[in-house]
Amino acid sequence: MSINPEQAYKELIRLAREETLLSSCADLLEWDEEVFMPAGGVKQRAEQLALLAGLSHDRATDPRYDELLSVLESSSLVSDPESPAAVNVRELRRGFDRERRMPRRLVEESARVTSLAQKIWATARRKNDYKTFAPWLERIIALAREEADAAGHNGTRYDALLDDYEPGVTTEQLSQLFARLTADLTPLVAAFRERSSNSRLKKRFPLDRQRAFSQGVASTVDFDFERARFDTAQHPFCTSIGPGDVRIALRFSGTDMTAGVFTLLHEIGHGLYDQGLDPAHYGTPMGEAVSLGLHESQSRLWENFVGRSVGFWKHFYPVLQSTFPTALNKVSLDAFRQAIDRVEPGPIRVDADEVTYNLHIIIRFELERALLAGDLVPADLPGAWRELYHRYLGVTPDDDRSGCLQDAHWAEGLIGYFPAYALGNIYAAQIFDAAERELGTLDDAFAAGDFGGLRSWLAENIHRHGMRFRSHQIIERLTGKAPDSSALIEHLSRRYPV
Amino acid sequence: MSINPEQAYKELIRLAREETLLSSCADLLEWDEEVFMPAGGVKQRAEQLALLAGLSHDRATDPRYDELLSVLESSSLVSDPESPAAVNVRELRRGFDRERRMPRRLVEESARVTSLAQKIWATARRKNDYKTFAPWLERIIALAREEADAAGHNGTRYDALLDDYEPGVTTEQLSQLFARLTADLTPLVAAFRERSSNSRLKKRFPLDRQRAFSQGVASTVDFDFERARFDTAQHPFCTSIGPGDVRIALRFSGTDMTAGVFTLLHEIGHGLYDQGLDPAHYGTPMGEAVSLGLHESQSRLWENFVGRSVGFWKHFYPVLQSTFPTALNKVSLDAFRQAIDRVEPGPIRVDADEVTYNLHIIIRFELERALLAGDLVPADLPGAWRELYHRYLGVTPDDDRSGCLQDAHWAEGLIGYFPAYALGNIYAAQIFDAAERELGTLDDAFAAGDFGGLRSWLAENIHRHGMRFRSHQIIERLTGKAPDSSALIEHLSRRYPV
Repeated sequence: MSINPEQAYKELIRLAREETLLSSCADLLEWDEEVFMPAGGVKQRAEQLALLAGLSHDRATDPRYDELLSVLESSSLVSDPESPAAVNVRELRRGFDRERRMPRRLVEESARVTSLAQKIWATARRKNDYKTFAPWLERIIALAREEADAAGHNGTRYDALLDDYEPGVTTEQLSQLFARLTADLTPLVAAFRERSSNSRLKKRFPLDRQRAFSQGVASTVDFDFERARFDTAQHPFCTSIGPGDVRIALRFSGTDMTAGVFTLLHEIGHGLYDQGLDPAHYGTPMGEAVSLGLHESQSRLWENFVGRSVGFWKHFYPVLQSTFPTALNKVSLDAFRQAIDRVEPGPIRVDADEVTYNLHIIIRFELERALLAGDLVPADLPGAWRELYHRYLGVTPDDDRSGCLQDAHWAEGLIGYFPAYALGNIYAAQIFDAAERELGTLDDAFAAGDFGGLRSWLAENIHRHGMRFRSHQIIERLTGKAPDSSALIEHLSRRYPV
Repeated sequence: MSINPEQAYKELIRLAREETLLSSCADLLEWDEEVFMPAGGVKQRAEQLALLAGLSHDRATDPRYDELLSVLESSSLVSDPESPAAVNVRELRRGFDRERRMPRRLVEESARVTSLAQKIWATARRKNDYKTFAPWLERIIALAREEADAAGHNGTRYDALLDDYEPGVTTEQLSQLFARLTADLTPLVAAFRERSSNSRLKKRFPLDRQRAFSQGVASTVDFDFERARFDTAQHPFCTSIGPGDVRIALRFSGTDMTAGVFTLLHEIGHGLYDQGLDPAHYGTPMGEAVSLGLHESQSRLWENFVGRSVGFWKHFYPVLQSTFPTALNKVSLDAFRQAIDRVEPGPIRVDADEVTYNLHIIIRFELERALLAGDLVPADLPGAWRELYHRYLGVTPDDDRSGCLQDAHWAEGLIGYFPAYALGNIYAAQIFDAAERELGTLDDAFAAGDFGGLRSWLAENIHRHGMRFRSHQIIERLTGKAPDSSALIEHLSRRYPV
């Protein structure tokens, strides 16, 4: 082909940017579906998303990619593997090779089925009626198998799905990592099961004031509202429509104010990662997040390592008290911190404390592998769910609503996604340690309302690299060690002494 | 080609539906841009819309359309010109022939420029700084000329633009219709200029109560919230994302409650038309509105013929009083109606009363024809604007913000759009007369809170036909007369005796 590598690279970047731009239209439609779409829009939205998924697939599998990548792969442009060109070529090749193996029909069908299944699931959950959702889960598992087989794997379909969320991590590696984590967590959780937990902070917290407080926290940590917005939704999430448009959906409870605050910090952590990506690389792998697990590490870091620190509340508790004088004027900072640091095994993942949370994930990891392998059929899920909750956490959900219907993920077609939450916790502990080794203890800065040091360090060491490194490489560069759960266990043992 | 007409029709409908589906994605992005997008999202949104416009153009100009349409045009499927097949074939041919003449570059460039120009315009208006907007208006006029030339015309570019909004109506026909209207309105307006107008109702009306009242009104006229939503925006509008998803953006003022009510009824009129289209024909001309003017007739009918009627307020004024007891308990129904029926020439179109409104449109019709023809350059627009306002309405705007910067339309690339507002008023008067001839005087029904008779009549006689008839055909079928302004003038003279 008579195209020189410089021309080829320019064209490749143009193709990649257009593909991202098209996906970003679907991202907005999905955001709207969660936040604002009226009930009557469901079918139309499923068709819109199926159409866009098909168009994205057409672009992602354009044979021109292959031609351009081949020219570049043998050129000197990619000789430095950490250069933007080499990173973009490597990751676009990875994406192209995966995508071209996917039949267009499968891509459209997945978009359509999961868009519809979300509404079925939401109704099933509200009515505690697992039976209506079960056939949809069956369809979704079948589609996930098809996807895994199309992508290719060495006998373990789950590997092929995982690779989409956490490139380079295998089911076997995860199993080992999680086995160690389970072994360390089990005695901790058991000890807490024996004790009566700290008392909850159940008062009235007007929603508009919670919103105002959240805006204040977000501004203090330099979350940029010129390039973002806040909304409320059934399920909290963060989505990036583009470099100037990051959207966070929150959920507030009138009685449980702290849930809202930690949800806020969690989503802010995601949002800061998105806002920290280099806009000059937007639309190419160099401008994208490394992996789901690393994205989650950022949210967990802000939620648990910043948001549950002594310093954070030294700074914010007076603000919180003046926001909710009736509820909090007689609650001391110590009493407040005890209330938020309670550990108590329960049936709901999103309500779980830092200590028990990872076991909720490990349960899902086991169940979704069993579903995918066919060792568990969707009809038997509720029983298997209860059994594992009893085994790992010593609790039994009252019903499927607080059992296997609690999460939207499987309805959204996200099989292989859950492990990222536990990986995020593991990475977050290692990253926070590394930050403090370099910046010194951060608690005093937090107490002074200064979060800029941490934010800049994260941007500099993680965000601005886009997909330059794999998640395990980032952890190794920052800590000199492979990902492992010892930093997390140390953190938990320190914060929650038994 | 070895395809039979039945197969060809099926494929044609599939193509049309996909094209509509793709446009509906852009519709959602545009809605979001007006209602929720953060400032930082501007550039990305312009690129997204340009990309979707290009993709839509590719589909709309797919040569397969031509092949399928040719098969169908010579088949017996289209022998009854009022049959769905004949209507769809006729209108898809019209759309295809127009679209294939448009260069893709022009389509993308228009989407990009108008998306950016809207933000420039909004800032220019806020700062009363016409000079920064003028070069953008120049680009938009240049693009409109290109579009008109690409579409083709007999010497009058404005005809080519008009045809996109009001198929079958020419500049010459409009000029005659508007000349007659101007002649009839001028003495009416002059008479009102001599008199002191009724006093305004300036009180405090809490926004949340205005919202609640609006929801109540909408429900009473059977606007279906399962298939719709309300928001607030800088500029009120109604958009249909699909048959189950109609979105209305409203604007409320804390002191001028009636503006909010009439805006509501206006947008509800649009929304009822969209909700009245046959969902079985969604995505094809049989499931689309006839024209912009006819769409506007529905909004004007609900705003002015329903919303300003004695009966409407007999029903709703007690509700309004109990919603705003402090402001309205001492205001009688008569005093309230006098306040909302005030006639007073002013500089702002959206604040204009029923009598003076059409002159605002006629001024814009003159100015945009002059801009397009090059008889007026954008730099001279502010002066020309002031001159025409003085001539037609006897008022001079204080500044460009309340002069030539007041409307978003030109910044959105909508040249040839304004006449639809006056056409809408003309059609609305004729349609309402026809409805009352058939259903009897409606005021008593309105007073009893019964709007279902009118709504069903409109759905039956207008909405459900989609694009089966041209707007003038609908008027002729309903009234036996061509569109003309005498019904409107009679209505105004009756309601506003001099």
